[in-house]
Amino acid sequence: MAAISLGLDFGTESVRAILVDTTGRQRGIGSCQFAHGQLTDTLPGSQVPLPTGYALQHPDDWLDAAAIATQSALHAAGSDGDDVVGIGVDFTSCTMLPTDREGTPLCQLPQFRDNPLAWPKLWKHHGAVAQTDRLNAVARQRDESFLQRYGGTIGLEWLLPKILETIESAPEVAASADVWLEAGDWFVWQLVGGPAEQLTRSTCQAGYKGLWSASEGYPSDAFLRAVDPRLAEAVAHRLPGILRAPGEAAGNLTEPLARRLGLRGGTPVSTAIIDAHAAVPGVGEAAAGTLVMVLGTSSCHMLNAIEPRTVNGVAGMVEGGILPGLVGYETGQAAVGDAFAWLRRLLGLESFDTLANEAMKLPPGADGVRCLDWMNGCRTPLMDATVRGQFTGLSLQHGPAHLYLALMEASAFGLRWIVELLREGDVPVERFVATGGLPHHNRHIVEVYADVLNAEIEVHPSQHGPATGAAVLGMLAAGSQASGFQSIAEAATAMAGVAPEQRDIVRPRSGRAQAYQTLYADYRRWADVVQTW
Amino acid sequence: MAAISLGLDFGTESVRAILVDTTGRQRGIGSCQFAHGQLTDTLPGSQVPLPTGYALQHPDDWLDAAAIATQSALHAAGSDGDDVVGIGVDFTSCTMLPTDREGTPLCQLPQFRDNPLAWPKLWKHHGAVAQTDRLNAVARQRDESFLQRYGGTIGLEWLLPKILETIESAPEVAASADVWLEAGDWFVWQLVGGPAEQLTRSTCQAGYKGLWSASEGYPSDAFLRAVDPRLAEAVAHRLPGILRAPGEAAGNLTEPLARRLGLRGGTPVSTAIIDAHAAVPGVGEAAAGTLVMVLGTSSCHMLNAIEPRTVNGVAGMVEGGILPGLVGYETGQAAVGDAFAWLRRLLGLESFDTLANEAMKLPPGADGVRCLDWMNGCRTPLMDATVRGQFTGLSLQHGPAHLYLALMEASAFGLRWIVELLREGDVPVERFVATGGLPHHNRHIVEVYADVLNAEIEVHPSQHGPATGAAVLGMLAAGSQASGFQSIAEAATAMAGVAPEQRDIVRPRSGRAQAYQTLYADYRRWADVVQTW
Repeated sequence: MAAISLGLDFGTESVRAILVDTTGRQRGIGSCQFAHGQLTDTLPGSQVPLPTGYALQHPDDWLDAAAIATQSALHAAGSDGDDVVGIGVDFTSCTMLPTDREGTPLCQLPQFRDNPLAWPKLWKHHGAVAQTDRLNAVARQRDESFLQRYGGTIGLEWLLPKILETIESAPEVAASADVWLEAGDWFVWQLVGGPAEQLTRSTCQAGYKGLWSASEGYPSDAFLRAVDPRLAEAVAHRLPGILRAPGEAAGNLTEPLARRLGLRGGTPVSTAIIDAHAAVPGVGEAAAGTLVMVLGTSSCHMLNAIEPRTVNGVAGMVEGGILPGLVGYETGQAAVGDAFAWLRRLLGLESFDTLANEAMKLPPGADGVRCLDWMNGCRTPLMDATVRGQFTGLSLQHGPAHLYLALMEASAFGLRWIVELLREGDVPVERFVATGGLPHHNRHIVEVYADVLNAEIEVHPSQHGPATGAAVLGMLAAGSQASGFQSIAEAATAMAGVAPEQRDIVRPRSGRAQAYQTLYADYRRWADVVQTW
Repeated sequence: MAAISLGLDFGTESVRAILVDTTGRQRGIGSCQFAHGQLTDTLPGSQVPLPTGYALQHPDDWLDAAAIATQSALHAAGSDGDDVVGIGVDFTSCTMLPTDREGTPLCQLPQFRDNPLAWPKLWKHHGAVAQTDRLNAVARQRDESFLQRYGGTIGLEWLLPKILETIESAPEVAASADVWLEAGDWFVWQLVGGPAEQLTRSTCQAGYKGLWSASEGYPSDAFLRAVDPRLAEAVAHRLPGILRAPGEAAGNLTEPLARRLGLRGGTPVSTAIIDAHAAVPGVGEAAAGTLVMVLGTSSCHMLNAIEPRTVNGVAGMVEGGILPGLVGYETGQAAVGDAFAWLRRLLGLESFDTLANEAMKLPPGADGVRCLDWMNGCRTPLMDATVRGQFTGLSLQHGPAHLYLALMEASAFGLRWIVELLREGDVPVERFVATGGLPHHNRHIVEVYADVLNAEIEVHPSQHGPATGAAVLGMLAAGSQASGFQSIAEAATAMAGVAPEQRDIVRPRSGRAQAYQTLYADYRRWADVVQTW
């Protein structure tokens, strides 16, 4: 029997468990909603309303739901758990929490039960606006070098703003927080046990959300002190553990957790990874040079490379950030599926089905209608949440189909801009793979992407890319003896790749691709004007 | 019994006759469709298709329909015609035709019956594209001073391009054209008779559509020769007559025409006026300083002033162009009702009724959505048919109501730009009167106009502004003895004005007007950037 790996994919509302064997066969799948969902109105057992922008979670949900989902997947696979050789975990990020030295979440201590800031903060918790502003102001004033890796801006949803929010707003909680950590790292710690000093932190979460890098570590004590001496103290003493890349083993499953999940004690567990980033191994891509485009409400485009390069406008460059031994680049577009849903509602349509036929018959350039799809700001390359969307070139002869094509073209031009920036920055981009929900709901957008990139795009069939990616990482953590794989590339290809003859390829149409050369140049000149104005 | 004047208002499809007395009472109204309508497909009695862009009319229709409409109005008024002391005529423009020396339209001569270019060309006839291009090219190359009065561009629908089209495409017709003239002038000539040398041409039509001015006359022989020597010959010898302002008497009704219309022979007839321009006296405004805004699918804003001024970007400045003794300025916005209808269709709406409530509750500036309403180009001040519309500042939180308010604001900003240009050019603008169909269908747009102008706007109740204006001009032509009016202002106020206590005034709301000061400044900076880019 081929060895099996378990991938646990933690989303915002639920966890999915997938069992994939070394041949890529999906042996079983299960999922479970979190009992408390997102805590945005009140804490459990309380009537006190939470402030606006709060989004918390219940740590019990993670273990409870993971146990149910795993047992459900094992049942579907007809497995007693003995053939599961590794476990991988992907998690939303930065979802984070404070614990004591033993890893007990502070919200589970009686004295902090009613304090919202003792609870895990979900990635979308927006309570740290003032703290983010101050971190950015001080970093810019001091011209901190780490800013270059993040496009010049520390995000509202990242780790240090969330820690600082608690330090300032609930100092009694912060004083008791022996350990601050990402929820993905906390979950892995729960699985493998051990002292806080040896807990495994993921280079992925630390690199993309924690301002950490392999060469520079966390931001300097001097910078942190200039923000708040208590933050400097927290970073120095309350982030214990060892940094490891996803796919590197974090330890072995303890007996109590093994019983709870229905697995074998001692099963190797991989270091955690951010959910979107797990899609890279999840679509079978573990080599340098493939842009994996996770297309959903927003888009995340990830790429591995051999060499680290600082590319202007490319926000997230982390060594070992996605896979061990490779440099992971994360770029993104802030509104994709969201922007299309917005336009559909604006035009008073139930769906784009009818309009799509008309839109796809229009010539490239939508008869002069042009769009900037910055309705939710621009992530890569501008890293500016304040820029806004546009439709220009409008005449009385234009209709809804022109706006629809123009929006597809804007999204494609934004993608090409990212690709060109990477290439100009000496980061090779050689293949394109699309995954996520959107390519399966809206084939047209992938066709426009292919035309504008003038490149083939492979649409990956998986609807469970991140979960599969976590399983690949679990298999890697199991080691070559158990898995038979000598490398991450080998594992990813075998477990999540698509055979060349079965690939679903969208090819550029040469006439349209030709026309888009000029239109893209126009777009870039225009985007530059809009920015400077 | 108060003396009565007849106003004849010639539109594109029909003529309206209105009888208004010196107290402003509307005594009778009648109308009649043109039997042949617009000739766009074939000539009467022919199967030969007309070229694309052709739009001709049948001269018989004008007299036939006017006779029926007048008799219908007289019947409604219970008048035998003896109490009608004057006749005024407004007409579409530049609707023009070639005639022989007696005024017989060439299309009524057997040898030209089947030649489309011998027929009257309707204002919207677009057969002279090449001729217009050449006229503009030569005028620009020679830096002709008359261009300044027209914003730098000779229009496709104007008199000289239409003459040149016939000269080039049907030289045999042009050779027989003893007289080229506007249809309004032709109709007045039919009413009063007399030799061609003494026919009355309107300074309104000649000034706005014929490149004529009181001080410079028609374009110079040298310019015309540079275009085509035959055009120079036509302007020198085939435009006979005497230029008079609307409201000045052109002559007296002949007995044959009196019988045909059911009026008294010898009744004074006013010089013709363009239909839109007749709205100025038609809403009771005959003094300098009132901007009369005719709001329809597009908008025409007319203003009389004491002094002639060359204002950059203000296209039509004609001495005696609207009323005798005053300088008429004509400005316009290319898409108003048209743009709103376009947006309504784009948003998939049957009407704006529901959306309007939501839109009018939004703060000035539509939560950051901005619009340029150039979906049909920009008339004043850019005189550029190639510029296009925009919506910018779009975010996922915006909906149809934001776009609707933004479009109303764009239209209002465009209007304010025109007003400020006039004022900066030392042309006083003191009052605002709105007329046309739009203010009666869409009150909200007038409210936004008032806020943005920070000025009261009077909505004139008349649905027949141009016809009433023609009647005012007819009364003026009748002379003070018959009418009792010593001035055009007196006549316009008495016959078409609204008593102060009955005026429908839309007042600016001070909070919103304040906010629009800043927003307008932003709009102007933005419009400048868009132009230069």
